[in-house]
Amino acid sequence: MTELFADRMKGASDSFIREILKVTDKPEVISFAGGLPNPGLFPVEAFAEASARVIRNSGRQALQYSTTEGYLPLREFISEQYYQKDGLRIDPDEILIVNGSQQGIDLVSKIFLNKGDHVAIEKPGYVGAIQAISLYEPIFHMVTLEESGIDCESLESILTENPVKLLYAVPSFQNPSGITYTEETRKKLASLLQEYKVHLLEDNPYGDLRFMGTHQHPIKAYLGDSGVLMGSFSKITVPGIRLGWVCAEKVIMGKLKIVKQAADLHSNYLAQRIMYEFLSNNDLDSHVSTIIDAYGEQRNSMVSAMESCFPKEVSFTRPEGGMFLWVTLPRGNSSMELFDRAIKQNVAFVPGPAFHFEGEGDNSFRLNYSNSNPEQIKEGIQRLASVI
Amino acid sequence: MTELFADRMKGASDSFIREILKVTDKPEVISFAGGLPNPGLFPVEAFAEASARVIRNSGRQALQYSTTEGYLPLREFISEQYYQKDGLRIDPDEILIVNGSQQGIDLVSKIFLNKGDHVAIEKPGYVGAIQAISLYEPIFHMVTLEESGIDCESLESILTENPVKLLYAVPSFQNPSGITYTEETRKKLASLLQEYKVHLLEDNPYGDLRFMGTHQHPIKAYLGDSGVLMGSFSKITVPGIRLGWVCAEKVIMGKLKIVKQAADLHSNYLAQRIMYEFLSNNDLDSHVSTIIDAYGEQRNSMVSAMESCFPKEVSFTRPEGGMFLWVTLPRGNSSMELFDRAIKQNVAFVPGPAFHFEGEGDNSFRLNYSNSNPEQIKEGIQRLASVI
Repeated sequence: MTELFADRMKGASDSFIREILKVTDKPEVISFAGGLPNPGLFPVEAFAEASARVIRNSGRQALQYSTTEGYLPLREFISEQYYQKDGLRIDPDEILIVNGSQQGIDLVSKIFLNKGDHVAIEKPGYVGAIQAISLYEPIFHMVTLEESGIDCESLESILTENPVKLLYAVPSFQNPSGITYTEETRKKLASLLQEYKVHLLEDNPYGDLRFMGTHQHPIKAYLGDSGVLMGSFSKITVPGIRLGWVCAEKVIMGKLKIVKQAADLHSNYLAQRIMYEFLSNNDLDSHVSTIIDAYGEQRNSMVSAMESCFPKEVSFTRPEGGMFLWVTLPRGNSSMELFDRAIKQNVAFVPGPAFHFEGEGDNSFRLNYSNSNPEQIKEGIQRLASVI
Repeated sequence: MTELFADRMKGASDSFIREILKVTDKPEVISFAGGLPNPGLFPVEAFAEASARVIRNSGRQALQYSTTEGYLPLREFISEQYYQKDGLRIDPDEILIVNGSQQGIDLVSKIFLNKGDHVAIEKPGYVGAIQAISLYEPIFHMVTLEESGIDCESLESILTENPVKLLYAVPSFQNPSGITYTEETRKKLASLLQEYKVHLLEDNPYGDLRFMGTHQHPIKAYLGDSGVLMGSFSKITVPGIRLGWVCAEKVIMGKLKIVKQAADLHSNYLAQRIMYEFLSNNDLDSHVSTIIDAYGEQRNSMVSAMESCFPKEVSFTRPEGGMFLWVTLPRGNSSMELFDRAIKQNVAFVPGPAFHFEGEGDNSFRLNYSNSNPEQIKEGIQRLASVI
């Protein structure tokens, strides 16, 4: 009875990255393939305490069904953070708690996209967004990323020729490239999107993990109501409890609440209560500093090792934060072939085609540095250099 | 820029029940409107202990990202339960952990339904399913429920005239009616669905909460691979951590994993670990017995009060389990009007149109008895009788 599947399932296959992660799961492999935060930095004891307090003191509420929008004090905390860091006034009623920003991508796509609608996304693009948005059967347009962020000229020429509804972007420490949009690019992009009446779906899970350079405000700060901004607790606390959020003005939020309720009624309420208890009793900024220090050191180890071991023809990004960097091989080289040689040397990464359509991007690949220590990074990069 | 919303959002409005619940949230109101399990029965201390053990002993794994399919020991537990209770062999690989069975409805609809596909659902039908499935823009056919379950003759006449892909049903202690399909109806339905090649989406959140009569096996037991069966921990343990599951054969499961990953990567992993820890250290059957005893007493209080206070012309179901019963007023009476009079007397219920399309079902309404004690039930039914 498989002929009964919906059309949207035709192009959908099991994630390429999931397949890769199976191969790289052996202990002898140094893996730069995954996208995991470093579990050594998880505030385990603080979570154990927060969880015990919430269940013992408020268990009958915290374990019951709750509201679709999410726990109000948690939304107030998020609202306050935007005001303090970015001068951005986002009412708690304009915040929806979701299961990681991955669910935000799904829900926002669901309220905006008809089959055949036009969507723009960065090139290379975040694979989880490509998967989630693809299920709404849009026409994708990829827009090149430059060192300063999205290429606004390329984007404009796409917008003049196509009725694009939505741009999905990760403007800070982008996954997979590690690129961060400059302030100038952010402003230029905001005015372009306003001119062409395109909604921005701005995904910002890494923005707080900056180890050099200066903080950039979300593009929503320049854009106002047509911007939908997402954030996540996954990279600044822990990912396993699946808590992120979507900020959108009230009309859009009304629609989002309808699809969130239809999707799963509400996000895990116990987890929301535990997260809020954790945030109330611990200094998030100081915890984030610890993460930044570690990732910064890991990023430096990787960049140094690459500078000394890689051939000059191989270029790579030098991210100012986040968890990933992006390597470009001279044209004609294949990262898919390189992967086969690398895995024999017990080192792994994600080949470029995972972040493109139809096999493009084969001369590039993504490296993750958040989940390996400096020694592993040095050793892994040496192994990788030996097969390049 | 609201003109940019997708077509699927046109019919979607904020849940009628959400609106009702706002009115009924005052402490002086005796509410039979919600669908909440009784929080007084939550195993709070056992969850506090399970949570402390999981975080302290395995925090770095339990708080990290995990696999899309869900925690294997939890899936093995569910598999074993089906074998013990129903002789049903469901491989753990044919089980996907989801955020309550509500998410199962969304994901199953997503893999099967194109716009304009035909879907059958019980009349009256579960409002959460109507909301979730509606977003895939199908053509709905409602099939009358009789005392013995779905009316197979009505269903067959719908199937002969329409290419129905999916039937959504709650065969045990249905929400909203409290009706349970007899074994005969289950078998007849299974052969009908096989004949017409219709997938069954069988939702069974209440099946274990039987306080009289004999256990019925899921229809999947008579149906095999074309049956997709869902279950939930919400009614037998706690709902706030949003854990349910979908059972489907491997080809369907492959598609479900793709859409689950796109939707939110995986369900809250900490919650899965806590649930498994709870199940390993506590006797679920004995906990469920406690719930059954309480709900059985509450159901009896409601039925007795209705038998003595309601006019003879008002009929109602006498459920053998679950959380709801269904009242039918003589034709021409309006439950919407009754609601307005009832709320003035501080008693609430959900009017029938919430479980139908286009205002049908106005001479009926749903009563919940799981979240009120026998004294509240007696008083609430007297208030209700005074306005009928």
